[in-house]
Amino acid sequence: MTSTSADRTELEWLVGYHDSRDNKPDTFFPATVPGAVQLDWAKATGQPEYWKAENPKLFEWAENSYWTYKTNIDLSRVANGSIPYFVCGGVDYQFEVKIEGTTVHSQEGMFTPFELSLENHIGKRIQIEILVYPAPDSGDDSTHHSVANACSKPPVSWGWDWHPRLVPLGIWKDTFIEERPSVHLFNLSFETRLDENCQRATLTINTESNQPTKLPLNLTLRSPSGAVAHQSTLSLASGSASHTVTIENPELWWPNEHGPQSRYELIAELQSGDGTAQSTLKKRVGFRRIRLVMHEGAWDEPSTFPKGRSNPPITLEVNGRSIFCKGTNWVPPEIFPGIIDQDTYRPLLEMAQKAHFNLLRNWGGGIINKESFFDQCDELGLMVWQEFPIACNRMSEEDHYLETLNQESKSIIEAGRQHPCLAIWCGGNELFNAWSMMTDQHPALRLLNRNCYDLDPRTPFLPTSPVMGMAHGHYVFRDQSNGEEVYSTFGNANNTAYTEYGCPGPSDVEYLKTFIPEDELFPPQASGSWKAHHAFGAWGVEGDSWLCPSVIDHYFGKPQTLEELVKYGQLLQAQGYKFIYEEARRQKPVCSMALNWCYNEPWPSAANNSLINWPHRPKPAYHAVAESCRPVLLSASVSKFQWSEGETFVCNLWLLNDHHEAIEGGQLEAQLVFPDQTIQVLQWTYPEIEANKNLAGPSARWELPKCEQNTFDLKLVDTRNPERNSVYTFAYKKAEAKDSGPRAMNQ
Amino acid sequence: MTSTSADRTELEWLVGYHDSRDNKPDTFFPATVPGAVQLDWAKATGQPEYWKAENPKLFEWAENSYWTYKTNIDLSRVANGSIPYFVCGGVDYQFEVKIEGTTVHSQEGMFTPFELSLENHIGKRIQIEILVYPAPDSGDDSTHHSVANACSKPPVSWGWDWHPRLVPLGIWKDTFIEERPSVHLFNLSFETRLDENCQRATLTINTESNQPTKLPLNLTLRSPSGAVAHQSTLSLASGSASHTVTIENPELWWPNEHGPQSRYELIAELQSGDGTAQSTLKKRVGFRRIRLVMHEGAWDEPSTFPKGRSNPPITLEVNGRSIFCKGTNWVPPEIFPGIIDQDTYRPLLEMAQKAHFNLLRNWGGGIINKESFFDQCDELGLMVWQEFPIACNRMSEEDHYLETLNQESKSIIEAGRQHPCLAIWCGGNELFNAWSMMTDQHPALRLLNRNCYDLDPRTPFLPTSPVMGMAHGHYVFRDQSNGEEVYSTFGNANNTAYTEYGCPGPSDVEYLKTFIPEDELFPPQASGSWKAHHAFGAWGVEGDSWLCPSVIDHYFGKPQTLEELVKYGQLLQAQGYKFIYEEARRQKPVCSMALNWCYNEPWPSAANNSLINWPHRPKPAYHAVAESCRPVLLSASVSKFQWSEGETFVCNLWLLNDHHEAIEGGQLEAQLVFPDQTIQVLQWTYPEIEANKNLAGPSARWELPKCEQNTFDLKLVDTRNPERNSVYTFAYKKAEAKDSGPRAMNQ
Repeated sequence: MTSTSADRTELEWLVGYHDSRDNKPDTFFPATVPGAVQLDWAKATGQPEYWKAENPKLFEWAENSYWTYKTNIDLSRVANGSIPYFVCGGVDYQFEVKIEGTTVHSQEGMFTPFELSLENHIGKRIQIEILVYPAPDSGDDSTHHSVANACSKPPVSWGWDWHPRLVPLGIWKDTFIEERPSVHLFNLSFETRLDENCQRATLTINTESNQPTKLPLNLTLRSPSGAVAHQSTLSLASGSASHTVTIENPELWWPNEHGPQSRYELIAELQSGDGTAQSTLKKRVGFRRIRLVMHEGAWDEPSTFPKGRSNPPITLEVNGRSIFCKGTNWVPPEIFPGIIDQDTYRPLLEMAQKAHFNLLRNWGGGIINKESFFDQCDELGLMVWQEFPIACNRMSEEDHYLETLNQESKSIIEAGRQHPCLAIWCGGNELFNAWSMMTDQHPALRLLNRNCYDLDPRTPFLPTSPVMGMAHGHYVFRDQSNGEEVYSTFGNANNTAYTEYGCPGPSDVEYLKTFIPEDELFPPQASGSWKAHHAFGAWGVEGDSWLCPSVIDHYFGKPQTLEELVKYGQLLQAQGYKFIYEEARRQKPVCSMALNWCYNEPWPSAANNSLINWPHRPKPAYHAVAESCRPVLLSASVSKFQWSEGETFVCNLWLLNDHHEAIEGGQLEAQLVFPDQTIQVLQWTYPEIEANKNLAGPSARWELPKCEQNTFDLKLVDTRNPERNSVYTFAYKKAEAKDSGPRAMNQ
Repeated sequence: MTSTSADRTELEWLVGYHDSRDNKPDTFFPATVPGAVQLDWAKATGQPEYWKAENPKLFEWAENSYWTYKTNIDLSRVANGSIPYFVCGGVDYQFEVKIEGTTVHSQEGMFTPFELSLENHIGKRIQIEILVYPAPDSGDDSTHHSVANACSKPPVSWGWDWHPRLVPLGIWKDTFIEERPSVHLFNLSFETRLDENCQRATLTINTESNQPTKLPLNLTLRSPSGAVAHQSTLSLASGSASHTVTIENPELWWPNEHGPQSRYELIAELQSGDGTAQSTLKKRVGFRRIRLVMHEGAWDEPSTFPKGRSNPPITLEVNGRSIFCKGTNWVPPEIFPGIIDQDTYRPLLEMAQKAHFNLLRNWGGGIINKESFFDQCDELGLMVWQEFPIACNRMSEEDHYLETLNQESKSIIEAGRQHPCLAIWCGGNELFNAWSMMTDQHPALRLLNRNCYDLDPRTPFLPTSPVMGMAHGHYVFRDQSNGEEVYSTFGNANNTAYTEYGCPGPSDVEYLKTFIPEDELFPPQASGSWKAHHAFGAWGVEGDSWLCPSVIDHYFGKPQTLEELVKYGQLLQAQGYKFIYEEARRQKPVCSMALNWCYNEPWPSAANNSLINWPHRPKPAYHAVAESCRPVLLSASVSKFQWSEGETFVCNLWLLNDHHEAIEGGQLEAQLVFPDQTIQVLQWTYPEIEANKNLAGPSARWELPKCEQNTFDLKLVDTRNPERNSVYTFAYKKAEAKDSGPRAMNQ
């Protein structure tokens, strides 16, 4: 959000690889900046698309090379009184910067930007080189992401159950020459604070210039409508200025569906002698107060001796209002972060908003998103749970790693803290479980807590997810080891927040055809492209994940076509997710958070827990989840997926309500829908319901009739409020179906 | 541990009270420094002992007054080239220091020392005044310790279930004039680090002088035997010097019964022109590495989805060895901390060592102990779990409190971190329970974590006790609301650490007579002195705590004499504690810590959970606990306390072993001892047992014979290793005892 009035010049880059730090590349080829060295090499050498078939393997060599970028810069025409700066948003991952062959900057860490004054080179033509080291390697298992256990590069690049091993390197953020006036502003930061009633905001603004100056600094704060809310003139005689503004009855920033996403504009202008602005910085400012609070009844537990602690708080309270958080786990939208820009984020974030989400968990295995991600989350009311780049690893306790993490985390916090969407800082993913073996005492987590407290003390901090009370998983519709379905797994759980849970489903047929060679398409094999794209062997517990054909077979028999396989797989995913989201909502107020694993994906999966295929192609589950996340809906709780002819179908009816004002009552009609008949099972007239409260209704029961299909629907219809209607699909099994019905198709 | 070669002059003080900040006392009376204004007033006005009967009430007015100390200082004979300093270890709680009527220092917080150069007053006679403010008052309930929820003064002074309301004020630490050479050392601090195998120590030493100097600084490190382990000469040309020393195969500091408490001596000498030391500072240095580690099997849980986190680690690992922590909760040994000195601590700490304790939890409701406490814990091998002064309150989140806490916690950490005994920093007591309503997100706890990490990063930090896995309570032998005894309460529990549990018992008769007026002695009434000394109404859950006469009645009928009451009450306390300590040990390795509530007391209690009466008079329970904490002992697990004639007595036999080397096997003989017969119930030959492992043995069963007494003993005798013998006492009930036996005594 920072903009300046300075001139920017884009640069032309070349890149090449070499086998040791002190070598030079034999050949250079054109480089796209920002981007990745692998993509430049692929383009120059005519490689096939990295995202098709098993092509990621073509790139594995590249992570072990040194790479050198170079660019020539003409500083012979710098305007008088201007200073040229080399400005770089980030290089992935360890690198040196050389000017005319001399190293002037060395850095480990991709999330810390840097800039270099080129004042001493004015009038000359110079060459800048960026020497990129091979991907970090802690010496741990090099075939596993544990090799990233001593660096701050996201571990996902070494491969995950939905990500191939492909480790990007290179300049991944905007990099350019900027000419600035000899005296200019270089920092504008602020801290907001709301009083107990959110009726008074305090805005503390800090600015710095590159040198002490007598030029006046004009500060302006404009309200969301553009009116001037505050104006003042400060002195930068010491090189910095701090100023605190109080705003009565500020317009507040609210999460999606809770109110407007009001933002003010803060403008700092260094006024030159002629009265014009010679240096300007701007930021958006949102006022909101975010806390983690205990749920209703939480202090009553535990109730017996010996007495432990009460559950930690995980209910997000925004501007004094408890919010039920509906959302998802965000993963990198591309394998190569260098090619991500605001248009990569836009469709994904808009779909999240339309799905009634209000919270995205930015999972610690992936990158810290670019500024435009947070800008758009601010705009769309999507709160962000931001993890540091640590996941499923036991991180080093050595000084070198802690120093890198210290630098990187400070950069991450300083960039994120000024966004009203930033709701929670979190150390990383699943660090207190057996596969990570980190604990509350790990110095990396104590360091992160320290830095978050120092730099952003009023934003909640969690050491990891899950902590006490919370839970991750399960990740299958039906656990083949014990026959448990999501209906019982979640129906019997009692957690404060479900911050990860998955239901896998295949991608659609047309999509599969774009990256799986035709001869591999059907039937899917646990090898080749299906395996490379995560349909088989992706996750340890279930060997056939994420396609899970044995689960499909269990309910519907073995599919005879790819279309049939996809249809049933997607049905299970959609119905499973519907149940979990709604069940989590039914468990309010003990539960206050439902975030599925995962929202998106960085490349095409054949099957995955994702709701949206790469780059932004929604699966049927996306639409089902969006239905289940409406603020107000009729909902049914059931105990299982498959029902038999003659069995008594039972469902418990609910009105789920997350709306922040009381809602009017209505009339629910439960219908069982079969191909040849619709049975009205029950009517329930329900009263007005207060804000953010659910209402448990009656149970409906009906003996299931004979039917020729293998599914039936439960429809919940509100005659007065049709926008609350819901529909669920279940598997149907004939009473004596040994020689007919779907299972017969396999024989 | 810091000593200097400078001259110290003690001061004569007067003190008086006044009703507003700007008044002066009408009269002054002599003051003892260190001490407390209340004690000075009591002495001057001939008040009765504060610790008798209901006398604390006499002192309540004093906490609402201002108090002014004054002293005259003659600086006319300061040695040439010397600088006099006014040095004060601490003033309780908020105060101003005036020199000749002008305020030169203001402070809130009793744990931060200060010193003032009097260089400008050399040659004069001056008056120094210390104006002490009334006790802090947050505006919360003034009859409850919640009034301390915005200050760093220990809340215990406002009254607890074993502490009267009596809020000390005044100069509570050593305060004197010190003449120092014009150039002198004023800081010597260090940081120790051991490598993974504890075979190499790194000692980083920091020293500062009051001004840059060309005088050489000689650093000497002497080994525990006195040999020179390192010597070097450094420059203080910049006013400070830092030096790192590596020591191969250092002699390690170990907890009690795990090895020697080796300490090195570090000497910093500023060498004057004539080669003598003109300024010397000395510190003791202990090398040990302390970590909190997971217990065996901890990573296997939880095992099902949705999956939470594993329990946090609470097993103390010292120098690579897991230690089962046996210990107790330490509370202030006096109501007035100003009168505490090393001789107050000495007998208590020696008894802790003799009881085989290795860990003291310095409970957050009380004071931070003086330096001599930590020195003696270092010497005796007693590890310290040190809490900050927060307990059972919901602390303020306001800036003013956080700033005070920041200052006070830094002072506390800087003083404590250089002691090898300092094993755990902890935010405070029971903050995550309903009566405190603080959470992991509270800024005070994040601040403490930050300061501990910044100043002492290699010592574990806990936000509070209990956290997940740990537990506090119960505090009664038998819960009258549900009939549960300690035998089932703890036998059915499964916690990682029992960091508080109590069994109340009365004090002995001779002791009771010293503070309860004769006419109140028997029968005890729930009023007057018995109540003031915590026999009744002390704790909410049990109205008759801590004397608990209804529990005594339940087993033995109503006592007819004070002697009988005390005998049975003390028996229950001793037997209850024996069971809990041994049961916690049986639950190893899941459990690794057993700390009863509480060890000592600040004034005489009529009944209390304490093991030792004020000031250092052990109760029978102390000796029972010491037996149960022997490194190796025979132990019996039973399900209840009272057994009936003809009933089959059942006990499970164990060999409890915390020893750090393998122990030889033995032969256990279980005997039931009645007045007229000893029954040999079972013999068990057990093998050699590896270090720090228990061995579960057989169960013994025996039908109980007729007996004329109301108790019987279970003796466990090891014929080869009599030092492992144990004995337990149980209540006995006759089969048809309606008209005879102990209960008949009440009729």
